[in-house]
Amino acid sequence: MAKEVTSRAENYSQWYNDLALKADLAEQSAVRGCMVIKPYGYAIWEKMQSILDGMFKKTGVQNAYFPLFIPKSFFSREAEHVAGFAKECAVVTHHRLMNSPDGKGVVVDPQAKLEEELIVRPTSETIIWSTYKNWITSWRDLPVLCNQWCNVVRWEMRTRLFLRTAEFLWQEGHTAHATAEEAEAKANEMVQVYADFARNVMALPVIVGHKSPNERFAGAIDTLTIEAMMQDGKALQAGTSHFLGQNFAKSFDVQFTNKEGKQEFVWATSWGVSTRLMGALIMAHGDDNGLVLPPAIAPIQIVMVPIYKTDGERSSITARMKEMKLAFEVLGHSVKIDDRDTLRPGFKFAEWELKGVPVRIAMGPRDLEAGTVEVHRRDTLEKETVSVEGLENRIHNLLDAIQKNIYDKADAFRKANVEKCDDWEEFKEKIQQGKFLLCHWDGTTETEQAIKDATKATIRCIPVDSFVCEEEGKDIFSGKPSHRRVVFAISY
Amino acid sequence: MAKEVTSRAENYSQWYNDLALKADLAEQSAVRGCMVIKPYGYAIWEKMQSILDGMFKKTGVQNAYFPLFIPKSFFSREAEHVAGFAKECAVVTHHRLMNSPDGKGVVVDPQAKLEEELIVRPTSETIIWSTYKNWITSWRDLPVLCNQWCNVVRWEMRTRLFLRTAEFLWQEGHTAHATAEEAEAKANEMVQVYADFARNVMALPVIVGHKSPNERFAGAIDTLTIEAMMQDGKALQAGTSHFLGQNFAKSFDVQFTNKEGKQEFVWATSWGVSTRLMGALIMAHGDDNGLVLPPAIAPIQIVMVPIYKTDGERSSITARMKEMKLAFEVLGHSVKIDDRDTLRPGFKFAEWELKGVPVRIAMGPRDLEAGTVEVHRRDTLEKETVSVEGLENRIHNLLDAIQKNIYDKADAFRKANVEKCDDWEEFKEKIQQGKFLLCHWDGTTETEQAIKDATKATIRCIPVDSFVCEEEGKDIFSGKPSHRRVVFAISY
Repeated sequence: MAKEVTSRAENYSQWYNDLALKADLAEQSAVRGCMVIKPYGYAIWEKMQSILDGMFKKTGVQNAYFPLFIPKSFFSREAEHVAGFAKECAVVTHHRLMNSPDGKGVVVDPQAKLEEELIVRPTSETIIWSTYKNWITSWRDLPVLCNQWCNVVRWEMRTRLFLRTAEFLWQEGHTAHATAEEAEAKANEMVQVYADFARNVMALPVIVGHKSPNERFAGAIDTLTIEAMMQDGKALQAGTSHFLGQNFAKSFDVQFTNKEGKQEFVWATSWGVSTRLMGALIMAHGDDNGLVLPPAIAPIQIVMVPIYKTDGERSSITARMKEMKLAFEVLGHSVKIDDRDTLRPGFKFAEWELKGVPVRIAMGPRDLEAGTVEVHRRDTLEKETVSVEGLENRIHNLLDAIQKNIYDKADAFRKANVEKCDDWEEFKEKIQQGKFLLCHWDGTTETEQAIKDATKATIRCIPVDSFVCEEEGKDIFSGKPSHRRVVFAISY
Repeated sequence: MAKEVTSRAENYSQWYNDLALKADLAEQSAVRGCMVIKPYGYAIWEKMQSILDGMFKKTGVQNAYFPLFIPKSFFSREAEHVAGFAKECAVVTHHRLMNSPDGKGVVVDPQAKLEEELIVRPTSETIIWSTYKNWITSWRDLPVLCNQWCNVVRWEMRTRLFLRTAEFLWQEGHTAHATAEEAEAKANEMVQVYADFARNVMALPVIVGHKSPNERFAGAIDTLTIEAMMQDGKALQAGTSHFLGQNFAKSFDVQFTNKEGKQEFVWATSWGVSTRLMGALIMAHGDDNGLVLPPAIAPIQIVMVPIYKTDGERSSITARMKEMKLAFEVLGHSVKIDDRDTLRPGFKFAEWELKGVPVRIAMGPRDLEAGTVEVHRRDTLEKETVSVEGLENRIHNLLDAIQKNIYDKADAFRKANVEKCDDWEEFKEKIQQGKFLLCHWDGTTETEQAIKDATKATIRCIPVDSFVCEEEGKDIFSGKPSHRRVVFAISY
């Protein structure tokens, strides 16, 4: 093996870090809590961005860019938002450095203190709604449908690559509507876009649902979420979409004249996914050999490794591979020929397995003569020798099959680990084993908190489509009447 | 007219602001010096990004992402860099807010002071080279060719949309090489990529050249630049590419083992273009009616405006337009049908002229019957009635002709405003008229500074290909011997 990867059984957490680091996705930087996203990791993120961006634009959303900094006073405007977001954040207080009087390096110039401190955006509702005030005066100006791809900062004490970092990359959509119905429909539409992306591109069988009031976004009336199950049975919130009501419009006085000539406050949504999705990708599909990338999101879908002893063999095999590469590219696939001369094939095989490339094609001198190649699929680790005749269509279909198989495997795992549960003792046991439990809940924050205190489990969501949950019963903890089951799990 | 635009003759500076604001490109935000890039402006920037990104990747460059924050001490490592960049910047000193003791809003938590202040990146050489130290140990690890698209902050007292803002968007490429020759070649390659992009996509006839030592990037051995002439005759530096020697490698101790087994410091380049290009686009091509966008960079290349009185006319004309739209899209063009029912055609015409859309197609009931449309080109404001027969090819060719005409017009303007000058009195006069002057320079910083103090003119570059400058002569100011002419101009 090129690089040793800790097995999941041995140490799941270390396995995760090994994959993030050794597959060249990311690493910690010199700045505490801030990561460096390496080229291979960034190429995956770029692919996510490009696909999601196209999906957003199909719904009429346009990209824009709003300032990195938010005046401190903006956070005091929306009461709940301030409680949720204005705490652990990066505060800019000065705008100049000067040479140190002792001649050693630089110090902050005390003369250059800002009148009002600026906060590095943890999320942009406040600065965006202060902007929308200038854009919206009439019903003709609505809806406003903006998204931005940017960096945000939330100070975190304990960080993990992709899952929890002080700085991360994300997109945040912010829309403004004339009616509550239209805004709610938009929030729903966007969570369905996320679910579609998660399921069909990332091969993640996510559960779509509403957050309980306790887990809602600070300032939201309703938060919709997609929740994914990781291989340790923990839940990972992979994207959220919020119906914000008129809260931000009221805080920033954004009103419009409706068709009847009356002034009304505007209705809002916001929705986002982040580089956290990279963490989901690692943990949902990876195995003890490394990453397993669904073809739809893999920056390299096919890697070709020539096997040779002589220079002549090398050049004739790579020449043949270049022809094949072209044929694959015509079908829309991304291909890399790994003809590095300083590394053995076995080393290359392990490296591309670690990096999760869906299909590997090897060709040696005997293959060249026989008109065959060895095809290896990353998801099952199976290999077979096949004819180069009609290879492009075979591989094209194989990539589809791999995409489907990765989804099916994750889906089977999830199905095996979601259970109805109606007994509190059983709940405590099974939640520790990494199950998603469908339980009755009495709808109160007190009960939710008591369950969390006892088990660390939280309500991941009140599902809207994945399970039939509407039924009468008794709360798993309090025994009080309940009208539906909800999903409990321990989460990242 | 939809919105009044100040004419260039009346007030050039106000004209620029009018275009940026009224064409919906950008506006000032609630945070001093930080702009909001509006959807239409951002769509142009996205198009620039996408084309440039493809050009970078063809040269082997990969994207990555490095932290927003840089530890203060990093700026003290490279002596010249600290002088150039560690001054006017945003300094993060605290990581928490708390509720104000008086109950009104939030204040900075004095307990949450950072041990070491963090600087919001003004440019990323230092944090990137501290990272490269972990990536590079052997000649096999080289070259490293990374780029990042990100935001940067340089505190500015006097800001102008796109041209000088506290926060701006850019790309910064940072490459690491085994030899000086290879690094210099990369710096050259990238400035040629910029020149190619400026000339063939943005229709800017830029001059490529070296900066004088005085105008070099802080920490560079050599800075290459592309310089564009705006319509007021001022120069705008549109992109730079730096050969950094081993300065950053030495500051961050980045060494590699060469093929002979010896330790050597790595050679570096960096290169960037920013949202400043948006300013160049406005000022190089705009006219008194608004923006004039080269088709290659226009988010909307063709706008179609139906002209109707009845609902029946409206639906039959827009139906016909949808067919035409599809035909244009097949040829790769972006098209918008402006069928807003609340606005008159004249208003729409003015709005799309203001936004610089290259081609406008109008169709009324009589056109529909006759099988004709009215075609209007933005660059010359000419219109003609033509048959819908073969329209897609006609428009395809027209877009090419517009792209070429916009370049030719800018090129003719530049040619008319570049002059050789050998007399100091003439220099002072002509430089104020907005000329680029090709003058002899004795090569000293003292002379350069004296000329700047007297006239505000700086050496924009020592051209490498646009003019034949190698000849013996006498410095325009000092009279000392000179071996070549350089370009002097007043710049943005």
